[in-house]
This record gives sequence, structure tokens and C-alpha cells, in this order.
Amino acid sequence: MASLVPVSDPADPRLADYVRLRDVNLRRSLEAEHGLFLAEGEKVIRRAVAAGHPVRSLLMAKRWSEPLADVLDGLDAPVYIADEAVLESITGFPVHRGALASLERLPLPTVDAVLTGARRVIVCEDIVDHTNVDVPVQHTQTPRRILVLEDLVDHANVGSIYRCAAALGIDAIILSPRCADPLYRRAVKVSMGAVFAIPYARMTNRHDDLAKLRTAGFTLLALTPDQTATPIYRASRGDRVALMLGSEGDGLSSHWLGEADEAVCIPMSPDAMSAGVDSLNVTAAAAIACHTLMR
Amino acid sequence: MASLVPVSDPADPRLADYVRLRDVNLRRSLEAEHGLFLAEGEKVIRRAVAAGHPVRSLLMAKRWSEPLADVLDGLDAPVYIADEAVLESITGFPVHRGALASLERLPLPTVDAVLTGARRVIVCEDIVDHTNVDVPVQHTQTPRRILVLEDLVDHANVGSIYRCAAALGIDAIILSPRCADPLYRRAVKVSMGAVFAIPYARMTNRHDDLAKLRTAGFTLLALTPDQTATPIYRASRGDRVALMLGSEGDGLSSHWLGEADEAVCIPMSPDAMSAGVDSLNVTAAAAIACHTLMR
Repeated sequence: MASLVPVSDPADPRLADYVRLRDVNLRRSLEAEHGLFLAEGEKVIRRAVAAGHPVRSLLMAKRWSEPLADVLDGLDAPVYIADEAVLESITGFPVHRGALASLERLPLPTVDAVLTGARRVIVCEDIVDHTNVDVPVQHTQTPRRILVLEDLVDHANVGSIYRCAAALGIDAIILSPRCADPLYRRAVKVSMGAVFAIPYARMTNRHDDLAKLRTAGFTLLALTPDQTATPIYRASRGDRVALMLGSEGDGLSSHWLGEADEAVCIPMSPDAMSAGVDSLNVTAAAAIACHTLMR
Repeated sequence: MASLVPVSDPADPRLADYVRLRDVNLRRSLEAEHGLFLAEGEKVIRRAVAAGHPVRSLLMAKRWSEPLADVLDGLDAPVYIADEAVLESITGFPVHRGALASLERLPLPTVDAVLTGARRVIVCEDIVDHTNVDVPVQHTQTPRRILVLEDLVDHANVGSIYRCAAALGIDAIILSPRCADPLYRRAVKVSMGAVFAIPYARMTNRHDDLAKLRTAGFTLLALTPDQTATPIYRASRGDRVALMLGSEGDGLSSHWLGEADEAVCIPMSPDAMSAGVDSLNVTAAAAIACHTLMR
């Protein structure tokens, strides 16, 4: 049973996991150093816990401890209770969704492990007995439709793509070495917890790991705004397909484009092109591409 | 020729159009009272001017006046020049994209006007002679594929849907009376100026104006997360189709759902549903739905 611990000093060292949540550089180094990440809001906290992430602590206004009572009952971690002014003073912004949790990262599987048999963690919405949440239900499958994200920088975009990929049934995601962190608070929040529902790995070498996809039998499709590419609904559909998505500004690198079996595009309206509306944002493009691939 | 006017006092009354850009309530009443809206960033400002919106003034750091020199040459409006600290003090946030413009709203066409012959404003990327930008190129067409947005509250979502709709060739958008404003700064920015490229109208009566769509021969499709609805790729495709999208939290109202000819859904992965990832966000759903409708 978690203990409720009232706190009132924003400088209390026990709250160090929660400081200055909008300071991206500080958060990156703090979270890497301690191997932690933050989940925000009741629903997302439930999913993080159910996915087996050990809880370091929670921080919330008193009224949020009630809807989370069943989760807190199963935990052996402190629950810091503060009023909203103190919360804002610690975190640097108004905590509208009321509850924050600091959780431990788990070791990511390797690219090989994800390509050969993805671990699919089933997140259960209504777990009553949380004594077993550190052994989430799993089954092994061979992924057939995956996304490969190259160097996305915006955490909200990463979270949005995870949500969409999970909802549409994409089996796994592979991240380039520099792609933004899916466990950064904003990514977790925008994904609505889908970052816990889809297996993923981060490449250690952007060239060698891309070659592994081909060795594993994946057809590599590169999504590009270039309208001379194959329309995505006519793309090759092998037994295994990896769809590569590039960064927000520049799209895929020329190296990755060159490694693709086929460049594919989402056909745009000629009127729009002549009106200067000449591209979709990466999350809209990913949504359309995932939906088309899964049909 | 616009005149460059150095300013250094954040309280200067000539800068009243630009105050506290993150204060949504203040901005709503200020912009409604003066019939203005703000455009941010070189590209979006170019598109707003090219779409024929009269310029009240501009505000920027000195270095941004150079890339915009050709636009400024054609304007008869003051260009206030401030350093970045003053800009931040006026607007309440760091103005990363450097240039802001305050422009006049134009009267919106009626729902009837949009349904019978949409005005398509062609936004020209590379206008050199800006003496003619108040007469944008237009042509009349009869819209066949339109979106109807019910009570969306998030300006970024509205902007994202406009960008996507314009890019994919949707002919027009109809807004419910309470739907968030496409000319709010954040919507304009996220749309990348697509709010100037697609004709739209705002309903004055949510019941009567919906009936007008049917009278005009539109098949009304209601997009819903309900997985018992028709998959969108099997939806009726009459000559004229209106796709109705509901608000972020609650989706379409029961009244609008009841008025639809057919409820349509984007099929979700059964695994995702059982994992609690049970919906797409409205912008991803809109992207997939627009792409499917336009095929």
C-alpha cells in the first residue's frame, strides 16, 4: 500500500524527479541520469503501471488520490500530496490533469529482438488486482508491418505516431539513433499511453541496423512528399513491410531514401500544390500511410 | 511602401494588436472587437497577404524585414521593428519565427454561397508585384467533397485539419456555430496558411444549416469511433459527399449522428482495442478519412 505524504516545500529533495517539466534540456539529462520517465494523468499512469514499469513515486493534488485509489493500493511507493500552487511551483506549469508519476524505464529490446518476435504488452484498462502488474500479459508474434522513424525531433509528433500505429495495428516501431524519446512526458501524454502498447527498439547504428531490416525480409518503403514516387496504395506489399518516415523539416535522409526498395507518396491535390499547400505534416502522413498499409 | 518604425516600449498603444498572444480569452475578445487576426512567420504572412487580407501593421525583429522586403514594398502599413526582448515582453512568449502581422478579417461567405459555388483563392508563393494582391485569382466551382466540423475546441486541431483538407483536395469546409476559429493565431500557424486556401463558412443555425447540405444533394457521412459503423472505404460515394467530424472529447452530437445518411468508422486493430488504445485523435482520423474520400 502506497503511503500518502503531504508536501509543501517546492525545494523538497524528494520531489526532484518532478522539477521544471518544460525545461527540455534539463529533463533530458535528469531522466537519462536516473533512468526515469514521467506519466501524467490517471489513464496514462494506469497504463504505465500495467505495462510493468516500477513506480518511483507519485505527485498529485489530494483529490486525484481517490480515482487512483485502486492503483495506489497495489504500490509500494510514496504518493506526495501537494496543493495546486505547490505543484505549479515545482513543475513550472499548471498541472491540469492532476496526477504525475515517476516511473523506471525498462531495458529496451534490441532491433533484432523486435524484428524476430515482438513482445506485445497487453495493457489492461480495468486491472483490479495490481499485485501482478509487474508481469504483464505477453505473447510473441513475428511483426509484419513496422514503422521506422528517422530523426523526428518533436515529442508530440512521436507520441501521435505511436497512438496511430497502435490503433491501426502496426506491429512494432524502430527508431533511428537520434529520434526523439517516446518516453518523454509530452510524447507519453500525446500517445495516450500507446507507447506502452507497441514494441519498439532504438537503432545503435543507423546504417547497419537498416541493413538488418532487409536481411529480415522486410520490403523498405520510403515515404516522401515527392509526387513522382509511387502512390502509396499501389506500393509493393510483401509479406513484411517497413515504412520509413523522415524528420519534420527535411524528410528522410538521402542515405535512407537510397536504401529503400521503393519511394512512395501520398497523392496531393494538383490545386493544392499550385496554391502552395504542398505537404502534409508528418503525423497526418503517418496516419494515412499506416491505414493504407494495414488494408 | 511600408515604413519601418522602431519601437521599444512594450506598452506603446500602436502595438495593442500584439499583446499577450497566449491569453486565449483576451485574444478572442480583442480580435473580435477589431476584426483582426494575426499571422506568424514569413511563409504564412505571405499567404495571408496574397489571399487579400488588408494589413493593419507588422511587428518583427529587424533581421526579418529583409526576407519579407518584397512583401513590405507593396504595403501601405507600418512595420514596427523591435528587439527580441521587447517582442517577448509584448507578446508574452519568445517569437521564434520572428515576424508577426496583424491583418483584417474579410466577411465570410454564407453556407449557401460555399455550397453552390466555392470561391477558391489561389495563393501564389512567389508574387513579385504585390500591387494586385487585393484581387486574388479566383474561380468558381461546385464543391463535391466537403468537411463539416462540429464544435472542435482546439485551434491546433482545426489548423491541422485545414492543412490536410487543402492538401488532399477537399473543396470546402463548413463549421458549426461554436467550432474554434480557423483564423486564431495557432490555427493559422498549424495550417501553414491553408486556412487561406480553402473556402469555408460558419453555420448560423446548427440544425437549419445542416438541412441545407441535404437539400443541396450532399450525402452526409458521420465519422464515429463506433466499430459497428460502415468502414469508411465502403461508404456511399454519391456525387456530393459531406463528411461530419465531431469534437475532440465527445465526438459528434447525437442530433448530428441522427441526421447522417450513414455512420462510418476507421477500422481499428482488435489487438489495440483490447489493449485500451481505442481511438485515433481527430486530426489523424480526419487525415485518413479525407484521403479515403478523395480516392
